[in-house]
Amino acid sequence: MSAKKNSGESRPESAWLENPTTVLRVAPGFVLADVDPDSTPGFAGGKAEGKTELTAVAELLDEKQERLFAASKGGAPDAVLLVLQAMDTAGKGGIVRHVVGAVDPQGVALTAFKAPTAEELSHDFLWRIEQRVPDPGYIGVFDRSHYEDVLIGSVRKLADENEIERRFDAILDFESRLVQRDIRVVKVMLQISPEEQKRRLAERLERPDKHWKFNPGDIDERQMWPDYQAAYQRVFDRTSTEAAPWFVVPANHKWYARVAVQHLLLHALTTIDPQWPAADFDVEEQKARLEASSLG
Amino acid sequence: MSAKKNSGESRPESAWLENPTTVLRVAPGFVLADVDPDSTPGFAGGKAEGKTELTAVAELLDEKQERLFAASKGGAPDAVLLVLQAMDTAGKGGIVRHVVGAVDPQGVALTAFKAPTAEELSHDFLWRIEQRVPDPGYIGVFDRSHYEDVLIGSVRKLADENEIERRFDAILDFESRLVQRDIRVVKVMLQISPEEQKRRLAERLERPDKHWKFNPGDIDERQMWPDYQAAYQRVFDRTSTEAAPWFVVPANHKWYARVAVQHLLLHALTTIDPQWPAADFDVEEQKARLEASSLG
Repeated sequence: MSAKKNSGESRPESAWLENPTTVLRVAPGFVLADVDPDSTPGFAGGKAEGKTELTAVAELLDEKQERLFAASKGGAPDAVLLVLQAMDTAGKGGIVRHVVGAVDPQGVALTAFKAPTAEELSHDFLWRIEQRVPDPGYIGVFDRSHYEDVLIGSVRKLADENEIERRFDAILDFESRLVQRDIRVVKVMLQISPEEQKRRLAERLERPDKHWKFNPGDIDERQMWPDYQAAYQRVFDRTSTEAAPWFVVPANHKWYARVAVQHLLLHALTTIDPQWPAADFDVEEQKARLEASSLG
Repeated sequence: MSAKKNSGESRPESAWLENPTTVLRVAPGFVLADVDPDSTPGFAGGKAEGKTELTAVAELLDEKQERLFAASKGGAPDAVLLVLQAMDTAGKGGIVRHVVGAVDPQGVALTAFKAPTAEELSHDFLWRIEQRVPDPGYIGVFDRSHYEDVLIGSVRKLADENEIERRFDAILDFESRLVQRDIRVVKVMLQISPEEQKRRLAERLERPDKHWKFNPGDIDERQMWPDYQAAYQRVFDRTSTEAAPWFVVPANHKWYARVAVQHLLLHALTTIDPQWPAADFDVEEQKARLEASSLG
C-alpha cells in the first residue's frame, strides 16, 4: 500500500490537501471539545468543490466496491464495516443516502439499530450486532451500533459502571476479532454543534414534510448534550485502537461530512486493494461449450 | 388515482406513448413466445431518450419512496414488493443497481435468493420468503424468489407434479395475503433471447474482470431454455392475478428494461399515493421546548 494510494494523490484533481485518514483520526490525547464542527479539515474548497469531489470519488468507490464483491467470490475474506454514530440530526442518514447510496446496493448490508427489542434484550448486547457483521465482499453499514450500549447506557444510567466497563472490554474483543477476519472497521462520529442541531430540529418542526423525522424525545436527548459529549470522549479514549480507530468528522457542513466519510471508505477499500478473482473454470473449455450450445 | 397519474402524463416530457403497466402486463391469453425481446413496447425513442427518462423518473421515484417511508412512521401499512425473475444474464442486477439503486438505500430491503440452505430446505419453500416480506414503508426487492421453486423445481424435476401444483396454490394464497396487507406486488420477468444470452455469456468469458460472474452451470441452465420458457408460461397462466399481475419486459435492450421496471415501480407508488404523516405531537409545544433548551 503506497502513500500515493492512501492520500488519493493518484487523482491530481483531488481537493484534499491533507489525508482525512490522518487529520480526522482519534489519536492519543484527542480532545473532542477541541473539534470545531464548522471546520473542514484537510479540504481545499467549499460546497461546490465538495460536490465535484463527491461525484468524482463515487465512481472510484463504485469500482472498488465491485472488485471487493468479486474478490469474495474467489474466496477473499475481506469486508468493510462502517460504523456511524452521532447526536440526532448530525447527518447519518445523509451519509447513507449520498455516500453509501452511490455504490451498488447489492454489495451493501445496511442496519439501522433501534432501541433493542425484548428478544434482543434477553441476549448480551453484542448478540444482535454479531448477526449483522458483513459477510466477505460486503460493505456493512451500522447506523448506530454497539456503541449505543456504552453511550446511552451510561448517560441514561441503563447500566452500572461495572457493566459499562465490561461492555468496553467486550467491544474491544469483538472488534479485534473482526479485524482478524479481515473486516476493516471504520468508526465515524459526526460532530455537530448544539446550535446547528437547534437549527436542524427547528426546520423539522417548521416543515410538515419533515415532521415525521421529529421525535419529542430528541429534545430530551439534546438536554443531555454535555453528558453525551463526555460519554463520547470516553468511547474515544477506550476504543480508538490501532486496528479499529475512530474518526471524528466535523459535520455542521453536510457536504464536508459526506466527502470525508466517502474518503475514509475509499481508503479502507484501497488498503484492501481487491483484485478480480481468477476463473475457477477452464475459460477455453467453457467458450467451446457455449459455442456448442445450439440455442443462440 | 387518476388516469393522468397512472400514465405519467403529468410529466409532458415523458417518452412513454403507452402505459407500461398496460402493454407489458400478462393478461389472459398471453403467450410468452410472442414477446420480441428486441422490442421496446410503448416507448418513443432509443437509448438516449431512455437515459434521459431514467434520470428524470429517478427523482420522482426518490420523492415517492421517501413519502412511502414517512407514511409508515405515521402508521400507514403500505409497502411495495418487486419480484425479479429471468434467465441468467437478463439484467436483474442492472435493475437493482440502476433503478432501485437510485432511491435511498434506507428504504430498500433487497434479498438475493440463492439455492436454499439445509435449514431452509427443512422448512416449507415459503418459510425463507416470508421472512423477507418488506415491512411497511419499504420497497422490498426479490432477486429471484419463490418462483424458483416452481421453475427450476419443475424443469429440474426437483419436485413431482403434485408438489408443484401445491406450491402454485401456496403462492397464490401467499401473494393474496400480501395484497390484503397493502403490499403492492410487482412481478417482473425480464425476457432476453437465447442469442443475446450467448453474447452476454461470451462477454463474461472474454473479459477477466467478468469471469467472476460466470458459472459453468449457466450453460447447463441455458441448455434447458425451452423447458424454462414452458415453465415460465405456466407460471404466467397460473399466477398472473388481478391483484398481483406479472409483467414481461423485453430485455435485449438494457436501457429499455430499466425504464420499464422503473415505471412499474413508480406506478405502484403512485397507486399508493403516500402522504406525509401528521405530527403525533403538538408542534407549537415542541417549538417552545426547543427554544427553551439552553444549549443552542
